[in-house]
Amino acid sequence: MVWQRVCIIGVGLLGGSIGLALKRKRLAKQVVGVGRSISRLDTALQRGAIDVATDDILAGARDADLIIACTPVQSIVDSLAVAASVAQPNAILTDVGSTKQSIIRGAIGRLPASQYIGSHPIAGGHHSGVEHAVGTLLDGALVVITPTEHTPQDLTDRMTRFWESMGSRTCILTPQEHDEALAISSHLPHMVASALAGTTPSHMLQFVGKGWMDSTRIAASNPQLWRQILEENHAPALQALKNFATICQTWIEALEQGDFDRVESLLEAGKATRDAVASRHLSG
Amino acid sequence: MVWQRVCIIGVGLLGGSIGLALKRKRLAKQVVGVGRSISRLDTALQRGAIDVATDDILAGARDADLIIACTPVQSIVDSLAVAASVAQPNAILTDVGSTKQSIIRGAIGRLPASQYIGSHPIAGGHHSGVEHAVGTLLDGALVVITPTEHTPQDLTDRMTRFWESMGSRTCILTPQEHDEALAISSHLPHMVASALAGTTPSHMLQFVGKGWMDSTRIAASNPQLWRQILEENHAPALQALKNFATICQTWIEALEQGDFDRVESLLEAGKATRDAVASRHLSG
Repeated sequence: MVWQRVCIIGVGLLGGSIGLALKRKRLAKQVVGVGRSISRLDTALQRGAIDVATDDILAGARDADLIIACTPVQSIVDSLAVAASVAQPNAILTDVGSTKQSIIRGAIGRLPASQYIGSHPIAGGHHSGVEHAVGTLLDGALVVITPTEHTPQDLTDRMTRFWESMGSRTCILTPQEHDEALAISSHLPHMVASALAGTTPSHMLQFVGKGWMDSTRIAASNPQLWRQILEENHAPALQALKNFATICQTWIEALEQGDFDRVESLLEAGKATRDAVASRHLSG
Repeated sequence: MVWQRVCIIGVGLLGGSIGLALKRKRLAKQVVGVGRSISRLDTALQRGAIDVATDDILAGARDADLIIACTPVQSIVDSLAVAASVAQPNAILTDVGSTKQSIIRGAIGRLPASQYIGSHPIAGGHHSGVEHAVGTLLDGALVVITPTEHTPQDLTDRMTRFWESMGSRTCILTPQEHDEALAISSHLPHMVASALAGTTPSHMLQFVGKGWMDSTRIAASNPQLWRQILEENHAPALQALKNFATICQTWIEALEQGDFDRVESLLEAGKATRDAVASRHLSG
């Protein structure tokens, strides 16, 4: 199906990539980008990620039949509530936030259950901003869709078809399942990378190699964004970090006891898990 | 200066890259590769990393004026002792092992202090084996040289000139300083990456993204090699892991207390450290 007017609120890496894919695949007659920075919207226009740019959400969302909020997680419900007031009555409202329970709690009474459903494309890069957007970012990426018990099946089906038309794979989880999974697969690595970078004294930085560089890469992410994510997904993130600390303690005990058979079996276990994923990711 | 005959014991990623650089820069009249696997030596020959291949260390090291052991750390002293017995009397003996104190302890009484000096090029990649060797691997890489109080200054100077002629930067540390630095900059990231991969349940692997992939990349390394490294550098590695566990505990407390200002300042500290290095590494 072809959308009449898709409104993307927040045209950064993910919003811009969604726009580029919509245009490339001719899935939308018009893509409207809503943002606060005119210069960034200009970049999005120049890159062909959007057809129309505005800093007025009411103007941008008017008569839209699909609205995708790509803002930081704490602004999503507000943005969608404003947009919904001027969009088509049956418009789909979704977001790409990387936590889901808190957004869905915030949506109760503010966004119609017949229109709002959460999405989370597990795609991204080290660099944010529309200048790094690419129309292929979502190709083959997994999008988690998070209906609640109030979500009509038809809305879930339409949302699934949308992301599949974008070239993505989809998976349905409850908001709670989503948040617990992402705490482990995404939020924990961010905390660990940050702790690893943070524990390295500055006079030791001259000795770091490719291993340290890879392992700490995501520590360079935006602290304000990640504070929000960890605030929104507080309990699952804490639990994931506690589980990780327990494994670190096992490591410490093995080293204290000079039990290098145990060290080797820990290394083997880590390698087995890593190798299982590497074989699925072409990028290795 | 041009070396008459350089003997590389263990022609893998690093040994092969050293051979390729020696040839490309015309720094050696002959490069001999010593290994246990004829098929891997054949690959090294085909790639032009060595001129001559042998599985006989006595034949390979005969009359060499520079011998570089690129074997796993626990074989280095044995290999160099055999090689020294047939090399030129004034030959330089070195190694590229990633721990230094235990090698140097093992070298006492077995390798002449006038000839042996430790080296550690901080260079490498995710893939081992001579098939991934490149002649530019050492370009701009830091090589730590680890003389002891028994090492003649002239030997340190000659070793420094060698690595600089290979295009590397050099730095002099005591073996103890080296091992403490590498425990933090290299061995800790390996343990952390392994623990992070190992703590991820297999049914969660479908949700991992680029962040998890980067942060766990080195968990795919060879467990036997890393067991050896951690065994050799036991105490500094344990101390580095304990310091890391303390930061994780700080993170856990901040999350337990819901103190997100503290979380944000931890994220800021990690980012500041990571950004300080990224600006120095072109590969970011």
